[in-house]
Amino acid sequence: MTSEAVARTKGPVRIVGTGLLGTSIGLALTKLGVEVLLEDASPANLKLAADYGAGRPAEASDQPKVIVVCVPPDVTSAVVQRELDEFPKAVVTDVASVKSQVLEELRDCSADLTRYVGSHPMAGRERGGAISGRADLFVGRPWVISAAPESSLAAIAAVEDLAIDLGSAPLKVSANEHDRAVALVSHVPQLVASLLAARLIAAEGSDVSLAGQGLRDTTRIAASDPKLWTQILAANSSEVAPVLKAFEADVHAVVESLENLGMPGSLAQISRALEAGNRGIERIPGKHGTKQTTYAQVIVMIADKPGELGRLFNEVGDVGVNIEELKLEHSPSSPIGLVELYVLPAVEKKLITDLESRGWKIAG
Amino acid sequence: MTSEAVARTKGPVRIVGTGLLGTSIGLALTKLGVEVLLEDASPANLKLAADYGAGRPAEASDQPKVIVVCVPPDVTSAVVQRELDEFPKAVVTDVASVKSQVLEELRDCSADLTRYVGSHPMAGRERGGAISGRADLFVGRPWVISAAPESSLAAIAAVEDLAIDLGSAPLKVSANEHDRAVALVSHVPQLVASLLAARLIAAEGSDVSLAGQGLRDTTRIAASDPKLWTQILAANSSEVAPVLKAFEADVHAVVESLENLGMPGSLAQISRALEAGNRGIERIPGKHGTKQTTYAQVIVMIADKPGELGRLFNEVGDVGVNIEELKLEHSPSSPIGLVELYVLPAVEKKLITDLESRGWKIAG
Repeated sequence: MTSEAVARTKGPVRIVGTGLLGTSIGLALTKLGVEVLLEDASPANLKLAADYGAGRPAEASDQPKVIVVCVPPDVTSAVVQRELDEFPKAVVTDVASVKSQVLEELRDCSADLTRYVGSHPMAGRERGGAISGRADLFVGRPWVISAAPESSLAAIAAVEDLAIDLGSAPLKVSANEHDRAVALVSHVPQLVASLLAARLIAAEGSDVSLAGQGLRDTTRIAASDPKLWTQILAANSSEVAPVLKAFEADVHAVVESLENLGMPGSLAQISRALEAGNRGIERIPGKHGTKQTTYAQVIVMIADKPGELGRLFNEVGDVGVNIEELKLEHSPSSPIGLVELYVLPAVEKKLITDLESRGWKIAG
Repeated sequence: MTSEAVARTKGPVRIVGTGLLGTSIGLALTKLGVEVLLEDASPANLKLAADYGAGRPAEASDQPKVIVVCVPPDVTSAVVQRELDEFPKAVVTDVASVKSQVLEELRDCSADLTRYVGSHPMAGRERGGAISGRADLFVGRPWVISAAPESSLAAIAAVEDLAIDLGSAPLKVSANEHDRAVALVSHVPQLVASLLAARLIAAEGSDVSLAGQGLRDTTRIAASDPKLWTQILAANSSEVAPVLKAFEADVHAVVESLENLGMPGSLAQISRALEAGNRGIERIPGKHGTKQTTYAQVIVMIADKPGELGRLFNEVGDVGVNIEELKLEHSPSSPIGLVELYVLPAVEKKLITDLESRGWKIAG
């Protein structure tokens, strides 16, 4: 997709930290023909990333134009500071998930902020490390660019060019706004999912056997890396704490109502909490950044064996209907799969008619 | 699938309440050739369900052998009682999501419990009403059967036969155990998702634009019907309240740690909470009722247009690899879809090699 493109970024680009993000950035830039210099505190990690094709190990004589710091949040500001000092002509950015703390720490040590622009690509995977790196990790994702008031226009442009080269959509958001936003849409949901999942530890085995898709969805991200997340939450504690505290107050009110159902207003309080949830998820934008659309659901039963999905989707393609969302649901106790297709309401009937005429079993 | 099967259930079966569950049961039994008699407080609902083919409207002279009460939780016990009185030879069951309260209320009014067996099919859809009814709603799902100590063996067998006829796996669980289990795996997750989503109401628009899949998953069930859920939560408050209270205490501890990061033990406390989440989700059984398997993830980039998924899955079928789970992820700002295929680790390499040789873009 990008093989014929000309890179906007002028190299060499130095990448400090060759984990998932650093390696992915290196892979993408290398594909674009930009010279990439890799650095990592661990020689083994460094060698792995270089072997994967993310760039070559940095040398003392290198003069990078752009430096991307991709180290854990707790050491980000120290490494940014070191890079600013060591390469007095380079633009330095970082990719840490929390932006204000890094900026404050850099101010505290009087770093040259004209050449620093914090950023945060909104991309990742549950698995980390160079081994999970991929050149297209950032394609189509927002890339938050949190320029400081001191940042020079040239430095901002360099980081924007980097984001664009990697296929991302640059999104200018101040460090404070960024941290407030991710506290709400990422950090608090992470904690809530973890704490909810933790309730299952002491559960009877027979109890969890009644688990359905709702529990699976609400707890999926509880599988995330505790070490990384402890750092993220600590670095953004001032934004996370008030949101989690307000959530705690809401939980408390519902506990009180449940414990005192006979008291006037208790049922209404529970009902209001559930209604507020309805209104809350309406705020979440749908795919392609547009307003959430209500799709029609068409459920097809298939045998759970190789080729069935292929046969189904091939015929859906023949029908000419675009699948907007899909979900594969396995029956908990039989080898039958339910494929939930979500399509624009206008084409629902056509899809059902055409699939049934081809012999598919449609629910309903 | 069921058209040649012989029903174990001996009709006529009377269904009281023709919403999603009542209509679905009627559709399935009618397909099996069992006579179904429909009853609903709303003549319009009743006519709709009959028109859909769920059975015929009940008449005064009918003598049902089995009665399924499918009315809202708050009126379930009253309707069960009425049916037991009105049809002194019939076996009566209900499908309410909470089982102890119904049983207690029936005991309080000295109902003939030898002919009553509570049950709860673990199936549903986010949309309710006869219009959403489908004959295969229960296929492959657990169907909890909560016999009372007084229930006769014949009555229990009749309800088990009903569950089996509808394609479900009968699961004998006492009313208390059932209510404890669903509080943990369904009712508390519902409340937590609703309360988490409610936090978004006051969010800045730019903040929610950073929302990713994590937020979508953790809040999806917040779209559920507040009226129905208020009744469910009220009926199971004695089981829900302690679990939610324990969750609240865990949330409180994390809030305290976040507000006092300098205090010894604060970071360790946050880290422990996240690690507990890791352990918690390991308790959730995987598909087909087996232990959760870790699948290998293969990500394929496709153009977001009709036929692409068909072409992809057709070729996956050609390769002979079974897809265990899949997710279609749209880029928030570009018309590119990422299809995440989850396969057994043993076939991951083969799938990648074969797909790449067919020209697909695989991430990594």
